[in-house]
Amino acid sequence: MSSTEYQVDRRELQFVVNETLKAGKLCELPDFAEFDEEMFTMIINEASTFSEQVLGPLNENGDRQGCRIENGSVVTPDGFANAWKQLGEGGWLSMNMPPEYGGQGLPEVISIIAKETQLAANQAFTIGASLTSGSANLIYTFGSEEQKNTFCEKMFGGKWSGSMCLTEPQAGSAVGDAATSATKQEAGHYLIKGTKQFITNGDHDMAENIIHLLLARTTDAPEGTKGISLFIVPKIRIDGTPNDVKVISIEHKMGINGSPTCLLSFGDNASCHGYLLKAENIGMAQMFQLMNEARLLVGLQGLAGAGAAVQNAWAYAKERTQGPSAIHPGEKAAIIEFPDVRRMLMQMKAVTEGLRALMYTTAWYTDMAHHGPDESREKYQDLLDLHIPVCKAFGTDQGFDVARIGIQVLGGVGFTQDFPLEQNTRDQKIASIYEGTNGIQALDLVSRKFTAKKGQLLKVLEQELSWFDNHAPEDELAGWVAEWESYRTLMQESIAGLKKIGEEQGKDGYVLYAANMLDLMGDVLCCFYLLKQADSAQQKWKTLLAEATSQAKLLEENDEAQFYWNKLRTTEFYVWSVLPRALSNAKTIKNANLAPLNACL
Amino acid sequence: MSSTEYQVDRRELQFVVNETLKAGKLCELPDFAEFDEEMFTMIINEASTFSEQVLGPLNENGDRQGCRIENGSVVTPDGFANAWKQLGEGGWLSMNMPPEYGGQGLPEVISIIAKETQLAANQAFTIGASLTSGSANLIYTFGSEEQKNTFCEKMFGGKWSGSMCLTEPQAGSAVGDAATSATKQEAGHYLIKGTKQFITNGDHDMAENIIHLLLARTTDAPEGTKGISLFIVPKIRIDGTPNDVKVISIEHKMGINGSPTCLLSFGDNASCHGYLLKAENIGMAQMFQLMNEARLLVGLQGLAGAGAAVQNAWAYAKERTQGPSAIHPGEKAAIIEFPDVRRMLMQMKAVTEGLRALMYTTAWYTDMAHHGPDESREKYQDLLDLHIPVCKAFGTDQGFDVARIGIQVLGGVGFTQDFPLEQNTRDQKIASIYEGTNGIQALDLVSRKFTAKKGQLLKVLEQELSWFDNHAPEDELAGWVAEWESYRTLMQESIAGLKKIGEEQGKDGYVLYAANMLDLMGDVLCCFYLLKQADSAQQKWKTLLAEATSQAKLLEENDEAQFYWNKLRTTEFYVWSVLPRALSNAKTIKNANLAPLNACL
Repeated sequence: MSSTEYQVDRRELQFVVNETLKAGKLCELPDFAEFDEEMFTMIINEASTFSEQVLGPLNENGDRQGCRIENGSVVTPDGFANAWKQLGEGGWLSMNMPPEYGGQGLPEVISIIAKETQLAANQAFTIGASLTSGSANLIYTFGSEEQKNTFCEKMFGGKWSGSMCLTEPQAGSAVGDAATSATKQEAGHYLIKGTKQFITNGDHDMAENIIHLLLARTTDAPEGTKGISLFIVPKIRIDGTPNDVKVISIEHKMGINGSPTCLLSFGDNASCHGYLLKAENIGMAQMFQLMNEARLLVGLQGLAGAGAAVQNAWAYAKERTQGPSAIHPGEKAAIIEFPDVRRMLMQMKAVTEGLRALMYTTAWYTDMAHHGPDESREKYQDLLDLHIPVCKAFGTDQGFDVARIGIQVLGGVGFTQDFPLEQNTRDQKIASIYEGTNGIQALDLVSRKFTAKKGQLLKVLEQELSWFDNHAPEDELAGWVAEWESYRTLMQESIAGLKKIGEEQGKDGYVLYAANMLDLMGDVLCCFYLLKQADSAQQKWKTLLAEATSQAKLLEENDEAQFYWNKLRTTEFYVWSVLPRALSNAKTIKNANLAPLNACL
Repeated sequence: MSSTEYQVDRRELQFVVNETLKAGKLCELPDFAEFDEEMFTMIINEASTFSEQVLGPLNENGDRQGCRIENGSVVTPDGFANAWKQLGEGGWLSMNMPPEYGGQGLPEVISIIAKETQLAANQAFTIGASLTSGSANLIYTFGSEEQKNTFCEKMFGGKWSGSMCLTEPQAGSAVGDAATSATKQEAGHYLIKGTKQFITNGDHDMAENIIHLLLARTTDAPEGTKGISLFIVPKIRIDGTPNDVKVISIEHKMGINGSPTCLLSFGDNASCHGYLLKAENIGMAQMFQLMNEARLLVGLQGLAGAGAAVQNAWAYAKERTQGPSAIHPGEKAAIIEFPDVRRMLMQMKAVTEGLRALMYTTAWYTDMAHHGPDESREKYQDLLDLHIPVCKAFGTDQGFDVARIGIQVLGGVGFTQDFPLEQNTRDQKIASIYEGTNGIQALDLVSRKFTAKKGQLLKVLEQELSWFDNHAPEDELAGWVAEWESYRTLMQESIAGLKKIGEEQGKDGYVLYAANMLDLMGDVLCCFYLLKQADSAQQKWKTLLAEATSQAKLLEENDEAQFYWNKLRTTEFYVWSVLPRALSNAKTIKNANLAPLNACL
């Protein structure tokens, strides 16, 4: 571990993916039959090395140098273009994409590793990459054969990049208010006219072409979201001529300065060609279909930032001395000796590993929903749909908070640019906003997911959460699970209570504390998945302990033992020192105070 | 209110200072006999205008332009030098300082207004100013007549500025590890040699001279904090010759870029003269004596940042439209219509006003402790000592969080430099670190303040918190007070529980969750002082309502009624939707999980 660089915690990733989620078992499914666990391990290592050696070293300069516009085009920080080339050629853009267009066809739960490590190494660079994957996936899912043949392979390989053009200056979260127009031409294509804002990688110098996936309204389209269509709008037309797309400006931001956030003008000279994706007026539905993947990726930005922060803070706390040591008389104390520093580090570690357990499991649900046995696909899709807003909103809020604590662990130097914590914190702040603000995620959770299919999603979750009924926890774990069960009950009561509030107070009352409901659920879920991990860790720990002469000696000499021991301590800490936050959220929901609606704002 | 500028909420300040704290009554004390309430009101207005018109406009450029070193000296952002001149000449540096050296001798509770508004308008500029006040105050308190005559008036008036040189690269929070040496010369002065880090306003171009108050070790001084002495070290000696103080570099930071944070070298050429303040080896005690004032000021940075954030977010939420309005059919909705946005704004407002109630009351305790009737001075000093770590740590953590929520209210534009929220958040982050990290504040609270004088401070607090026993709350307030009382009991139980944990687990166990104890106390105190405010507001509201034809009409037409109504809603929100956080802290303390001490870190 290093206080200034990012190094992948390979041991933790191996544990989560292979030892607890048993990703190897996915290879029993026909779609993943060509893989095995050993290959997964190899991929984890390769992905880690790429992130550490290629992306990490560009992170700091990406922030300091930032992006600029020169001669009407965006210039990215030094080294970004070269890294992009390696990203594409290494297949990192299309790990989970179908092999027919050059993708690797890997499970989501393996693909997520590469994404986490890339984001942890360089948030600004990687969020742009995820938009290329996302837009390529839209074309793969909805495009004609010709469109797929034209775009997919080039985008999977990074030769061409992608962008998502949803937001307009007057329409942020209200996507249905988009005013960009698309007028059908006799030749079959559409003429696009409008302005799009906050377009990540909307222009740059890293790929040969940029393929914009753009929402626009066709002539006489219905109002609102029902009249939105999705178009492919290349920066350069397939025949090599420019396509009347202009970058007007880039944003000056709090963070992700290495990522160009563009204001784009389409059709200034009435010659911007767009190609309809499938059919008119289904753009919102198309976006929704790939929303889960996009939102998990943004949640992952929180996890990745948190993961990097823990490492940096942990390493610093071990190397920084301050005052006399109570443990080693005559020496100076490393600040990691101090209880308050240890508490902060454990908070960071517990939340980070809880988020990882949550998100990697959600990735596994994705695999099972898309590739698992037919009879269980609906169940996993339900779990996936319910987990996504939690991954996105809880993940990004908690990730930011973990980085904030990291600054605090470092003290004065944490506030300086000499250490990566402050940039990490700044870079992360956007994640609670884009891809549906966290407030919108909370609305999605309580208004859509709780009520979908007459509450079926919640029923499926309850089944999943009763896992320990059939896996009786042993020793100290029994007490932790019992404690967690009381919070699980609290969550159920809060859901029921919220429903009642809605019946009595109407819709505004129902959604007023949706954010608290989401946070409550986030803690209960993270802790649940950590407890499942602890169940595995406990077995391994007990086996090692049985063979050891003493616990102290074992912990001193055996890294594996230390890993499992710490996993248990981390879970324990989550149960007794993090989970109590759920009490606060449950009480707030129960109190259902309507002052925000009654105040004169 | 404005989404991009800072405007003082004069109505709120009047309410807090004159209507609830009854600052006018302080004029009955001999030390403040020359003032009256009308003068206080005038000063509130003048201070507000200065902050809005002089400091606010320099805030954004101060961040973007930052400081630089040119020819061995620090150059501050455009306009800062001129603003400094006005600050000094306007008497804003010495509002609460004694008139004999040009101070205004005002109560702390009035002085705090100027400081809050200055910090809210421009954090980077103002934190430097507070160090001039602080170091001048040290000289005034401990200096010889000659020293006072030489330095005080010039520093009170800003002609000369001050800095505090405590931290050294190898000694951050462990001040006792300071290695800078002071060697006594026959002429009476000392030769100073050493390096000081993180020195705010350690060098700049705003004043004619910089007077460093510096901690150093004299020859043969005892080890640790007992061997630290305090010296006056001017940048330019009184005879006009340079004093061998060199600025080596300035920090590149996350925020407060307009404030030069210097690495200073003293005595490179063995000719740095320092003048002892009072006596050798009492430097730490001297620092401690003025620590309350300094820590309240840093807490105030959190309050000020929060106050500015609420305004900006509130104004933006009223002007930004998005989607169709549910209230005004056919129109677009201002985002302030949305429940989640209203919840966020109320959270920001409730916490900010809670912090203001806490800190202004603490300022009033300062006045009573220093200038009140002799028989009650000890009581107010006890309250002051107990409140200070809460003001500092809870204030800065909550202030940062309020600004963070402000970014979220704005959405995408909140992450850009087009609005002041992101800078506000960055600027604030340092406040949880300097002047004793928030972890150290928590230690101070539970290890020093709880145990001082055999627990006397807590007893005095309990008396203070039983205020409602003699002021029976009416109507809806009765229910709020009853609810708050249950949290007050919880706080008492947590304090008792913590003591028991200490007895069973030793010192490390006792301090492990000190931060939770401090946060729990912060919420209980903020809510208490808000409830006292609500008691005043309720009287006024009822009077206005009795004369009105209807509540709806009153709220629509009468700004005063709206103010009192909102104060009640804000208090209500704190009780039912913020205070529940205390449950989480209480449970964590009670659980007393030792995983952080047992993990292999």
